[in-house]
Amino acid sequence: MGAVQARMESTLARLLPAAQVAPARLHQAMRYATLEGGKRVRPLLAFAAGELSMAKPERLEIVAAAVEMIHAYSLVHDDLPCMDDDVLRRGKPTVHVEYDEATALLVGDALQALAFQILGEHSVADDSGAQLEMVKLLAAAAGSRGMAGGQQIDLESTGKELSLPELEVMHVHKTGALIRAAVLLGGYCGALSPEIKNALDRYSKSVGLAFQVVDDVLDHEASTATLGKTAGKDSKQGKSTYVSVMGAPRAKELADELRAKAHAALDGLAGAQRLAQLADFIVLRKF
Amino acid sequence: MGAVQARMESTLARLLPAAQVAPARLHQAMRYATLEGGKRVRPLLAFAAGELSMAKPERLEIVAAAVEMIHAYSLVHDDLPCMDDDVLRRGKPTVHVEYDEATALLVGDALQALAFQILGEHSVADDSGAQLEMVKLLAAAAGSRGMAGGQQIDLESTGKELSLPELEVMHVHKTGALIRAAVLLGGYCGALSPEIKNALDRYSKSVGLAFQVVDDVLDHEASTATLGKTAGKDSKQGKSTYVSVMGAPRAKELADELRAKAHAALDGLAGAQRLAQLADFIVLRKF
Repeated sequence: MGAVQARMESTLARLLPAAQVAPARLHQAMRYATLEGGKRVRPLLAFAAGELSMAKPERLEIVAAAVEMIHAYSLVHDDLPCMDDDVLRRGKPTVHVEYDEATALLVGDALQALAFQILGEHSVADDSGAQLEMVKLLAAAAGSRGMAGGQQIDLESTGKELSLPELEVMHVHKTGALIRAAVLLGGYCGALSPEIKNALDRYSKSVGLAFQVVDDVLDHEASTATLGKTAGKDSKQGKSTYVSVMGAPRAKELADELRAKAHAALDGLAGAQRLAQLADFIVLRKF
Repeated sequence: MGAVQARMESTLARLLPAAQVAPARLHQAMRYATLEGGKRVRPLLAFAAGELSMAKPERLEIVAAAVEMIHAYSLVHDDLPCMDDDVLRRGKPTVHVEYDEATALLVGDALQALAFQILGEHSVADDSGAQLEMVKLLAAAAGSRGMAGGQQIDLESTGKELSLPELEVMHVHKTGALIRAAVLLGGYCGALSPEIKNALDRYSKSVGLAFQVVDDVLDHEASTATLGKTAGKDSKQGKSTYVSVMGAPRAKELADELRAKAHAALDGLAGAQRLAQLADFIVLRKF
């Protein structure tokens, strides 16, 4: 994990415009938003999925960076005053606090564009037709029927008590779609049989949901210092969480059931050890 | 022009998610931001450029829609309170006024994703490798060294008096990059020789700048009712314009010089009549 995380840091540092390139303040803020941050769960998933399809690391680092740029942009926009209005992210002031709101808006916009630019620019698949499929997959995962749509559902759900199926619909969009894209794009970098693709799809759905369930449990139990972001925020903002809907003990059981489902999806596949370990990491993590 | 504009309206209406598809409020707002709006200058340019490369209209409508979605998203974000804080656009309340700020933010984010999704999804070039080039071109034009970068330069220039070269750098990014992308993408839909590509590149640079010079003159002279957006806004916000930097008479001369340069770029090319007419339209328009 450490090796992939270090590789991602240098890949992102290389793919992002240099801090002194004009407009320098925008590029500095884009680097601030993306570098030295987070667990890189999506890149880890992309690299692990690539082991199943024998994908080359030079390809995996590109798709992982594209997914991570989409993720980083979504955090910057999500933290804005008109959204969650948060001041702390990954233990640092959020982008609009460190810079300003307008710059934060543009940081997100430019990171999204850069994600698609690098997917168009670098060869990440055996043929260009497959690579266009990958562009489409990432765009769909980021858009109104994926991540951005999940944010909208989240907005409209604030202050309402959601049922369990409603909560699941929200998270399948808000976090699940991009996690699924990370896993599938990692697979697409190599030779992806229908069987492996199907397994990755099922795995990613369980892991994506597990990720959110555990996030809710940690948000409920951990401190701001441990999380590096404001703890207990969702419940303060009147948002439904897995803990508010089913209680912490049942949420923990659910996370474990989803971990078992993720493992089951990988049954009988060669090279799936890292994906299995990542399912464990995602469910058993403490931050 | 009317035929292309009508075709774009139906293409965009078809490519945007239906208003009743969940999350419905987001999809309604995306349609509100994109449909029934504007002169469709970028689509007109893409279709006209496609005449030089014998491009099929079924391809042109896709790239034109992708460019127009990027343009529409940029207007929605540009109108937000943290940016230009405007309440009127194309004669209607801006998206954050009609809906709310958070929805407007997500409308822009989702429109950008949708632009790349349709470029990945539909066949718009003879081979997939060329189409990946087109993805990269649009992304670069939208990103931090294109349109979003121009917005950042604009932000940082507010309240300062810019020199003419500084003003040009801002507009080459802010509006020029996407206009250039519209022209080149139209060309790429067909058979694009290096000679035609070079001509389109030179044409688009002159036309892109002319567009902005005329915008500044109209903003200075026209009324809000004619423009469909708040008139005189730039000077009120302490922004440099071609009128503030060189005066209206000289700005009008410059627009005409740029029109002549655009025509000159097309010299000797077959099928360039519409591009020449569009250069005239862009410079001689009254709104």
